[in-house]
Amino acid sequence: MKESNMKTITLGMVQHHCNDDSNNNLDKSIAGIRKAAAQGANLVLLQELHNSLYFCQTESPDNFRHAESIPGPSTETFATLSAELDIVIVASLFERRSAGLYHNTAVILDGKRGIVGQYRKMHIPDDPGYYEKYYFTPGDAESAAEAFQPIDTSVGRLGVLVCWDQWFPEAARLMALAGAELLLYPTAIGWDEHDDQAEQARQQEAWLTIQRAHAIANGIPVAACNRTGVETAAGAASTSRIHFWGSSFIAGPQGEIIAQANSDEETVLVASLNLSRTEAVRQYWPYLRDRRIDAYADLLRRYRD
Amino acid sequence: MKESNMKTITLGMVQHHCNDDSNNNLDKSIAGIRKAAAQGANLVLLQELHNSLYFCQTESPDNFRHAESIPGPSTETFATLSAELDIVIVASLFERRSAGLYHNTAVILDGKRGIVGQYRKMHIPDDPGYYEKYYFTPGDAESAAEAFQPIDTSVGRLGVLVCWDQWFPEAARLMALAGAELLLYPTAIGWDEHDDQAEQARQQEAWLTIQRAHAIANGIPVAACNRTGVETAAGAASTSRIHFWGSSFIAGPQGEIIAQANSDEETVLVASLNLSRTEAVRQYWPYLRDRRIDAYADLLRRYRD
Repeated sequence: MKESNMKTITLGMVQHHCNDDSNNNLDKSIAGIRKAAAQGANLVLLQELHNSLYFCQTESPDNFRHAESIPGPSTETFATLSAELDIVIVASLFERRSAGLYHNTAVILDGKRGIVGQYRKMHIPDDPGYYEKYYFTPGDAESAAEAFQPIDTSVGRLGVLVCWDQWFPEAARLMALAGAELLLYPTAIGWDEHDDQAEQARQQEAWLTIQRAHAIANGIPVAACNRTGVETAAGAASTSRIHFWGSSFIAGPQGEIIAQANSDEETVLVASLNLSRTEAVRQYWPYLRDRRIDAYADLLRRYRD
Repeated sequence: MKESNMKTITLGMVQHHCNDDSNNNLDKSIAGIRKAAAQGANLVLLQELHNSLYFCQTESPDNFRHAESIPGPSTETFATLSAELDIVIVASLFERRSAGLYHNTAVILDGKRGIVGQYRKMHIPDDPGYYEKYYFTPGDAESAAEAFQPIDTSVGRLGVLVCWDQWFPEAARLMALAGAELLLYPTAIGWDEHDDQAEQARQQEAWLTIQRAHAIANGIPVAACNRTGVETAAGAASTSRIHFWGSSFIAGPQGEIIAQANSDEETVLVASLNLSRTEAVRQYWPYLRDRRIDAYADLLRRYRD
């Protein structure tokens, strides 16, 4: 058996409620990371934009004050913690790249190595309550070959994507083709309380289903860390509340649920993953062998009209 | 409201057990189609290679006797039935295109119009018990622009794919980008009885999950018609039995299950679908708006190494 047959990681995720006190939010993230590490996690994933309320509920120039540079205060804090605990941390920040240029960015801290990579959210949503196109410039790359690249860390090659990316099979596939050993999605998604219960259930189930499908299609584990709780962003009309549905989960390479948090509880979720199962699963289900790359060119078109 | 807001279809599927009597198998398909039509179906989907046992359990030149031309005896039978009942039928045949050139082909019959299109399976599996690469040449096209094209019928634009295709998000996406209003998968998949129950459950759930995800990713309904029953193909060792898991299902454009058959029962499944929901679902979840076609070029690579 190859050395890779022994490869396991222990993944922790910190699902929490945010409020308008950024120090309090940061404290929750840090406490969750410490708790996960104490339970053996050597990789911890945080929820999307964990330092603040989900300010994208409204469009207001005032919210750009939440942005920070990379490296900056947050990455210094998490780098210090990562080094102290000797674990990998995937944090999620509102990045100020320059005046007038901001991204929704995941940063990967790897112990003494510090920042080992970052990923700027490529697919940016924009729909009622999620006005992200106002705040975030989509991730860019020198060329398509440089886009959707996983990040090498001491625990493995991580396919880090962010929230809305989770609805696009293309992003998952590109990460897998570049050797990602698992997919990680910092997330902020919830219910519009105006939708009826059946619609809410369909949405949550769809969210879970499509991400499990990325695991299946690519033979690698998938994990998403979502925020929980009801939020009304500063300045938002009371009608624009989002009930974040939590339900952070870890799925194995056949899409099977390994661990999942509840909708409404702050949770530190920890589970071990045997990354070497990918080899066996892909031998059973050899999709990479059979992709019809000769016939996929129109995937690069907006519409086939 | 636009006219399309009124568009509904009633889809029937015929899930049955096959044996080595092809007339008997054909009779079951025909009886099932009549039953579905009597229940209001104006579109009926048959399971993969419904005329015979799943002969791909073994590699034997003798099995090429099952192949037939298109048009040929089967399409004549189904065309007559389609015209009589004034419904669309999606049949699945072992096609003899020429000496030494065979395909796994779905044929679409549309009432008095006869054959309105066909789809030659693009992704061909090959693993223990499913030796399809021996029998079937993968579907070809003049160019990638001609591949994965849906077929216009009197009930709508049908994205017809076949079995192993169901594991590839690329195929589903290309059909959707070409305007497919729903995806249909004639299927033959089952359990290897040597696998333990947990593995069997994971496989069946993965099969369901990834197809529901195609519905979600593209905002269109998805249906798969699978065979049921245990089969030992002629000439196959008794150890190579497949327990086909049935479970034929119809999912709506959010991936929600609308109807599903049991694993082990012959079933005529009938359900109505409102195709116009796609417009509303895609306005809620506008993935087509946000695809990063500028960054997807490497989807055309075998591996990003």
